[in-house]
Amino acid sequence: MRVIPLRGIPELEEGDDLAALLASAAATAGGLEHADIIVVAQKAVSKVEGRVVHLGSVSPSERARELAGPGDPRRAEVILRESRTIVRSRPPLVIAETRHGFVCASAGVDASNAKGVDTLVLLPLDPDASAARLRDRLHELTGARIGVIVSDSFGRAWRRGTTDVALGVAGIRPLLSLAGEVDAAGYELHATEIAVADEIAGAAELVMGKTAGIPAAIVRGLSLEGVGRGSDLLMPRERDLFR
Amino acid sequence: MRVIPLRGIPELEEGDDLAALLASAAATAGGLEHADIIVVAQKAVSKVEGRVVHLGSVSPSERARELAGPGDPRRAEVILRESRTIVRSRPPLVIAETRHGFVCASAGVDASNAKGVDTLVLLPLDPDASAARLRDRLHELTGARIGVIVSDSFGRAWRRGTTDVALGVAGIRPLLSLAGEVDAAGYELHATEIAVADEIAGAAELVMGKTAGIPAAIVRGLSLEGVGRGSDLLMPRERDLFR
Repeated sequence: MRVIPLRGIPELEEGDDLAALLASAAATAGGLEHADIIVVAQKAVSKVEGRVVHLGSVSPSERARELAGPGDPRRAEVILRESRTIVRSRPPLVIAETRHGFVCASAGVDASNAKGVDTLVLLPLDPDASAARLRDRLHELTGARIGVIVSDSFGRAWRRGTTDVALGVAGIRPLLSLAGEVDAAGYELHATEIAVADEIAGAAELVMGKTAGIPAAIVRGLSLEGVGRGSDLLMPRERDLFR
Repeated sequence: MRVIPLRGIPELEEGDDLAALLASAAATAGGLEHADIIVVAQKAVSKVEGRVVHLGSVSPSERARELAGPGDPRRAEVILRESRTIVRSRPPLVIAETRHGFVCASAGVDASNAKGVDTLVLLPLDPDASAARLRDRLHELTGARIGVIVSDSFGRAWRRGTTDVALGVAGIRPLLSLAGEVDAAGYELHATEIAVADEIAGAAELVMGKTAGIPAAIVRGLSLEGVGRGSDLLMPRERDLFR
């Protein structure tokens, strides 16, 4: 497996043709191959989709002021709007379930300062649709049928540090099922499923970096072509022991 | 970044020189390079270290019978012995904090059947020491100064599927710290830390597979030489919102 950073992608704005920028960066890196997977950082996707809120335009509610603690209540207001449920909070740290069903810090809301304007970048409305649009447009531009993952950095329960995970996918199976593990009495404990899309997102993060201005990478050498959705990676509520 | 599977490692037994087998497999794959990281599956390490319990030798306690539900109470007994705390249980599923501080299914206890004998494979007693021993012996055998990660597949809260994470490390920094994220009011939310050792373990899993008999891989092209411990990746209890 090879993981190839895609360099030279400029600061992005709403309406930019991200697929064209990815195709051009991929061409510089030697071109796309069949079954390649392009991992794109959520923040890049959100910016071109206009999922950006100017902080100056936000009026915080009373609930947002409470949630913010010593932080910015306008930011807390936007987090509340993006959230279905607040899972835990220790101001200003908020773990929320987003409207999509992701459980993550700040409902995925990131601070950004572009050209001196303070903005918040929200998660894409439908990360699978974002991934599918990029995949279709990349096919149109390059002829290559590849997989696409829209990734973000999430914290985890019990472990320090973030790892990148897949929010949206197109053209790949995000989970790989193995035969169920069986205990010595022959009782099948549970089917083993590997969250390969999350592992691929994490592998891409290792070459993307947060500060290096590399918003995407190609992962080559896996055979995961298929159909799936990012939401396949969400634990169904009835099986979730931690909510 | 390249991820290279290490093939041809036979079924392992207590006392086997795992480092020699890794060195030989690495030589077949073109040899080791400076700053390479070898990821080795925990199960391989545990087997050569004799961290194996014959199921026939286990007498389950009453508490183990309760915990097992419809599963094997002898397995539950071993899980209890490996655990500091049971975090959640829905028989026969058990999420436990191990004596090392890892929170994972079954306290890391895996079923195994080698040569018709039902055994349970436990986590290494000290995964960092295991990683350091492999690193030192690999240096002795090959002259290469590499990093070592002992990995295992863990489930996650809120997300389906397992991803591989680092239990023990040697010769690398497992966390990469970035400048703290600052909100628009200038309030530093929290330092951003990336759990690179976990992302590397996950990347290696993608080429190792669970059923393919490939217990290790080389990850090449990163520069993470340094000093650290697998326990650096454990969330300190006082910062943990999910225990």
